[in-house]
Amino acid sequence: MNAHILAIGTELTIGQAVDTNSAWLAQQLAGVGIHVTRHVTVSDDLADITAAIRGSAQATELVLISGGLGPTPDDLTRDALAAAMGVELAFHADSFEQIAAYFRSRNRQMHERNRVQAMIPHGATPIENTRGTAPGLRARLERADIFVMPGVPAEMKVMFERDVLPHLRARGGSAEVIAQRTLRTFGMAESEIGEKIADLMQRGRNPAVGTSAADLVITIRINAHGPAAEAANALAERDAAVIRERLGTFILGEGEDRLETAVARLLIEQRKTVSSAESCTGGMIAKRLTDIPGSSAYFIQGFVTYANEAKIRLIGVPGNLIAAHGAVSREVAGAMAEGCRRTSQSDYALAVTGIAGPTGGTPEKPVGLVFVALAGSERTIVRELRMGDNLSRWEIRDRAAKGLLNLLRLELLRAAR
Amino acid sequence: MNAHILAIGTELTIGQAVDTNSAWLAQQLAGVGIHVTRHVTVSDDLADITAAIRGSAQATELVLISGGLGPTPDDLTRDALAAAMGVELAFHADSFEQIAAYFRSRNRQMHERNRVQAMIPHGATPIENTRGTAPGLRARLERADIFVMPGVPAEMKVMFERDVLPHLRARGGSAEVIAQRTLRTFGMAESEIGEKIADLMQRGRNPAVGTSAADLVITIRINAHGPAAEAANALAERDAAVIRERLGTFILGEGEDRLETAVARLLIEQRKTVSSAESCTGGMIAKRLTDIPGSSAYFIQGFVTYANEAKIRLIGVPGNLIAAHGAVSREVAGAMAEGCRRTSQSDYALAVTGIAGPTGGTPEKPVGLVFVALAGSERTIVRELRMGDNLSRWEIRDRAAKGLLNLLRLELLRAAR
Repeated sequence: MNAHILAIGTELTIGQAVDTNSAWLAQQLAGVGIHVTRHVTVSDDLADITAAIRGSAQATELVLISGGLGPTPDDLTRDALAAAMGVELAFHADSFEQIAAYFRSRNRQMHERNRVQAMIPHGATPIENTRGTAPGLRARLERADIFVMPGVPAEMKVMFERDVLPHLRARGGSAEVIAQRTLRTFGMAESEIGEKIADLMQRGRNPAVGTSAADLVITIRINAHGPAAEAANALAERDAAVIRERLGTFILGEGEDRLETAVARLLIEQRKTVSSAESCTGGMIAKRLTDIPGSSAYFIQGFVTYANEAKIRLIGVPGNLIAAHGAVSREVAGAMAEGCRRTSQSDYALAVTGIAGPTGGTPEKPVGLVFVALAGSERTIVRELRMGDNLSRWEIRDRAAKGLLNLLRLELLRAAR
Repeated sequence: MNAHILAIGTELTIGQAVDTNSAWLAQQLAGVGIHVTRHVTVSDDLADITAAIRGSAQATELVLISGGLGPTPDDLTRDALAAAMGVELAFHADSFEQIAAYFRSRNRQMHERNRVQAMIPHGATPIENTRGTAPGLRARLERADIFVMPGVPAEMKVMFERDVLPHLRARGGSAEVIAQRTLRTFGMAESEIGEKIADLMQRGRNPAVGTSAADLVITIRINAHGPAAEAANALAERDAAVIRERLGTFILGEGEDRLETAVARLLIEQRKTVSSAESCTGGMIAKRLTDIPGSSAYFIQGFVTYANEAKIRLIGVPGNLIAAHGAVSREVAGAMAEGCRRTSQSDYALAVTGIAGPTGGTPEKPVGLVFVALAGSERTIVRELRMGDNLSRWEIRDRAAKGLLNLLRLELLRAAR
């Protein structure tokens, strides 16, 4: 069974609010094996809403609608559904009584304008709203079952779980269940991943495997459908295992994992500690390392050595080294990491120095040139990153921090072998 | 002129990600008087994308599309646009060279798969992507101008502002122009602001004035419409002046200003310097102070003194003070700020110590208890924040950082008087 999800509201179409109802509803439908092919958002306009309802009712078997059930003149979903069905609105006494009871239970005066919320399209069935005043609506149009829910997320979610979901289950959305797995990778281009798992990404295949990129982290999504949860999960896990085997250490984790999540996990497992000395990232690396609950187990201390004097005084970078190579250099990055490790007496130390821009670049050392360094008991590693000056200051700092956190992640994986 | 906004991606239709591109694009279009009547989201399915493009091209004069331009097999927007236009894809040498140059500038190997990103529907015009590999597309279909942009927000936004927006301006949106002003406040509750400017917030009024809250920063939006830019701007500016006068120092800035933007502006104006010593915020304050381009003018150095030893050794907090009052105490916060200022020889020093949780709380010192301190030449100020343990670790750290940055902002405003 396919479904469309409609969201009604001018605040959404003009971009003053972001629609989160539709994503939430789509997740719920996936859980019962209903395939959402389209989301549509329309403004509080009678003709637009009516056209959207008609279009979706012709295109699919299930239409979930949120919004436009309020008591004010710009709440038009009731009227639009009636227009789409070619029927009139009729006063529904039970719904009116539920609305009145809702106000009584809160010792509040019911407004005359709430009366309109008890107007139901002829042939539609009201759905009680246990969290607010606007009853929901259930109707049949063309090939489709239509459910209208309030736009207020709290009211919508309760109504969906209490009335809509059981109805979909009873109707047997489909025998199918969808299982989702998410793998997160760093360090391999999306195009290269696409080549390595091209066979899994073929269209029409089950599981469906797709990739998406955000700030250098490539997310691989596995959506498997099967007759039951176990079967779907097994399918998803089989692909996850194949992808893990092919991408190896490029996979940093699953679900919502970030590089710092993976680093923290490894540091705690190996009982190792870390410290940081940052120039252009200005505390970003310390901040991310301490984003993780329990970070005091592995994070000793951090320095933001923005000025040269700070590099010299706080972590013992030789002044002549800065004079000879400049603060943004392979040599100074290494000296920062080793000095930070010495001063902090930590197992590992991270250091970064670079030019985040937008100003401060030269032909030899352009904006986007960053050196990241990792000092450990065995060795010190320095990497040069050239990011190009078309990136924003934030992007350059973010990529430098990610590059350095990944350097530590790989070193910890190496130590574990 | 009316517009539709299309978002392409199975991660969106199945609810694994929330579409924020469409809301952002809708706001931009409002700014040039273009009325968005519908948002449509479709999965990575060739037929669905093609149908959505055809439908919107027939219904409206402008179609903005984001997503589906990547290099992997599930990126199908190029093919769908070609199908909707009834044309073939053709290899575009200049775009290919731009993609190759993008990889070269990063010392990275270009993959064969990226070649598909240089395939352009016959009759369409590629738009250079200065932030990534996927070129955008401009085409004409039915009554509509169609612009396709990457789904990665950073790439999409730059391409819209750099190429799409100028084109729309040239084409001339509508006679009505909408002027938007945004004021940002900190330290006053949204309901209190609502009372202070209730007269400006009345419905149906021009300008329309609304508030929205996000992480303690209350944003006041002024949307004025008029026959021309000057008239609309004058209306918006008139309201902005009234609001500034009523809210005074609660207004931290305009547009996208954050507390650190305001602090940086004041530090530079007054030629003052700052340093930081952080415990529970773990570098967040240094990171924010250095988010601002040119921060080396005012930021000397920062310490992330997570362990007690670090507080003692690095910024000279007396060990007996920690023993007597505990690391999370008014006394230690003040000593951290004063020690940091002394060590750094900066005009001001910021310090924070607290319990970010989720663990580590006690009945006397619960999760969410944070002390923030500001040391200056005249005085040291310490504030106790009790945030309640129902907040997340991130919220507690964010609110502590904001509270401390605002303390410095108000002190700098005081010094300026």
